[in-house]
Amino acid sequence: MSKSERYQKGAAKMKELFGVEPRPGMMQADFQNITVEHLFGEIWTRPGLTIRERSMITVATLTALARDPELKTHLRGALNLGISRETIAEIMIHQAHYAGWPVGVNGLRIAREVFDEIDGKKN
Amino acid sequence: MSKSERYQKGAAKMKELFGVEPRPGMMQADFQNITVEHLFGEIWTRPGLTIRERSMITVATLTALARDPELKTHLRGALNLGISRETIAEIMIHQAHYAGWPVGVNGLRIAREVFDEIDGKKN
Amino acid sequence: MSKSERYQKGAAKMKELFGVEPRPGMMQADFQNITVEHLFGEIWTRPGLTIRERSMITVATLTALARDPELKTHLRGALNLGISRETIAEIMIHQAHYAGWPVGVNGLRIAREVFDEIDGKKN
Amino acid sequence: MSKSERYQKGAAKMKELFGVEPRPGMMQADFQNITVEHLFGEIWTRPGLTIRERSMITVATLTALARDPELKTHLRGALNLGISRETIAEIMIHQAHYAGWPVGVNGLRIAREVFDEIDGKKN
Amino acid sequence: MSKSERYQKGAAKMKELFGVEPRPGMMQADFQNITVEHLFGEIWTRPGLTIRERSMITVATLTALARDPELKTHLRGALNLGISRETIAEIMIHQAHYAGWPVGVNGLRIAREVFDEIDGKKN
Amino acid sequence: MSKSERYQKGAAKMKELFGVEPRPGMMQADFQNITVEHLFGEIWTRPGLTIRERSMITVATLTALARDPELKTHLRGALNLGISRETIAEIMIHQAHYAGWPVGVNGLRIAREVFDEIDGKKN
Repeated sequence: MSKSERYQKGAAKMKELFGVEPRPGMMQADFQNITVEHLFGEIWTRPGLTIRERSMITVATLTALARDPELKTHLRGALNLGISRETIAEIMIHQAHYAGWPVGVNGLRIAREVFDEIDGKKN
Repeated sequence: MSKSERYQKGAAKMKELFGVEPRPGMMQADFQNITVEHLFGEIWTRPGLTIRERSMITVATLTALARDPELKTHLRGALNLGISRETIAEIMIHQAHYAGWPVGVNGLRIAREVFDEIDGKKN
Repeated sequence: MSKSERYQKGAAKMKELFGVEPRPGMMQADFQNITVEHLFGEIWTRPGLTIRERSMITVATLTALARDPELKTHLRGALNLGISRETIAEIMIHQAHYAGWPVGVNGLRIAREVFDEIDGKKN
Repeated sequence: MSKSERYQKGAAKMKELFGVEPRPGMMQADFQNITVEHLFGEIWTRPGLTIRERSMITVATLTALARDPELKTHLRGALNLGISRETIAEIMIHQAHYAGWPVGVNGLRIAREVFDEIDGKKN
Repeated sequence: MSKSERYQKGAAKMKELFGVEPRPGMMQADFQNITVEHLFGEIWTRPGLTIRERSMITVATLTALARDPELKTHLRGALNLGISRETIAEIMIHQAHYAGWPVGVNGLRIAREVFDEIDGKKN
Repeated sequence: MSKSERYQKGAAKMKELFGVEPRPGMMQADFQNITVEHLFGEIWTRPGLTIRERSMITVATLTALARDPELKTHLRGALNLGISRETIAEIMIHQAHYAGWPVGVNGLRIAREVFDEIDGKKN
């Protein structure tokens, strides 16, 4: 598969997850290429896990590692795939037990911020 | 719900996940009670996530945090629920990208050890 | 112990630590119930550690894990229990050595922010 | 304070905590000097925290960060200071909630190993 | 080496790395002394690693651990030593693979902020 | 660049770092392909960092994250590139300060094990 094919496959997968294709300037240029071609074009497109399962695992992991800006991006992806707000809150409550209470408190706060942004409330 | 009801509910959920009920002496006595009553009786039994989804999220998190003995226990749970070896390997490959390459290397090694133990090979 | 008794016991323990009882809407509703009933009603109320020791251990852990918003909450709890500003600074200096220099730098900065908020200075 | 005074002060503090003075060859030579002179001679000897409080905070932190060999060393220090096995178990149960369940499971297992070594049981 | 000599040696090393000497009030007073005397006066001055190598290792570690404010300080140090923006971006891309994708995304964002501050752009 | 070209480029880079080419069965098959093609064929071959700098950064990161088996592999790589045992010990002492004392203790112990294996001593 050529580099260009991998890029197109990755961009399509990002559209499926986030609802939009990657825009130039979203990240440092080389890293954006690696992200679209490799992470989305070669990993997210693999069989074995559905996109919904990958999204849930990614949200759970970003919550456990407290990577807040990335978590916001993937929460929007999860909602775009139809994962409900109740399921997202449940992931946070589950993670509070496997990665510690502050992880749950923080995950629910970040989720609240994303829900409020979508609902047009300032936070 | 009385303490005893919570314990029974938790023990039933552990049986569903691991195939066996908790045995006395598995952990320090107080912590075992808290684990059965609270973690399994009150958290794993909540709606919003299926047991398969909770299992996958837990495996992904234990992989990302490199909690190896606990990961082995939950890999046996995942297999008991019918999650395939291919899906487990796929979780490890995904996590290599979200929590770092050594996390993927280690997760696949631990999974290999569990598969070999089940197949009766020494490792 | 019924759910309601556990809630009351947890709310009383939170009052002892933070000086105020939990208010509705402080967190997502289900997680707030679990926090009051289980974390404060069943764990913080156990014997074996004094409330001062639990507070110091919690502050040390939140510092080591760099959970800043939660650390602020528990720094206010520690001060409410009578743990001095000097002791808090000493915990941060100790943790710089066990969890890395940036943990000490960050812990002292967060402590400074809390002290300034209490003293009515903007930071 | 000369280097030699700092070394003697650190060695005395290590004797107070662990019951024995540092032996040559315990660690890489330069790092052992830095550990005795700086970590024990200049940090553990500071006022603001009692040795018992420093020991409890250190055990809690090593548990949360899952640094098992170091945790064993400091569990022996805590026991040497008169901190009871019940208090140590209680720290692990507390940490399960602030750093995640696998941290509690692992901490209690390591504590069990140390207690069994002391009691002359093989583990 | 007396305390005062160590302080002077540490202050000179900080000047070499950051371009400026430590100012009073930069950190809590005791911790600032320990940082200047011990971390810079006794560790950064050791042979075995060049200052450029120590700077690159420190930037890589702060990126992997997501210690953002400290990372900003050390990115300015790295640039002051003549480490190029391209090399810094390359460290972030490398770390995305060893500590996880969000670490790379975050590291490149923090580097972008530092570059923009230096270039006089608001971010 | 075709998949096969990336594989060959990655295998050559692994030979340069580790002294040997990747062998079939070293890891799970798919992950081994991704590691050779992407991690070594596309990332380790990028300009901006020398192989010696990438090796030092990787050793520092694996030390800070306490990924012991991976650290052993990369310590052998570093020695193969001509990085001295003194420099490796110095990295561990530096990391003790940026990621916490137990990280330094553990890193020096793992390095000792690798040196002893190379010298033909059992550990």
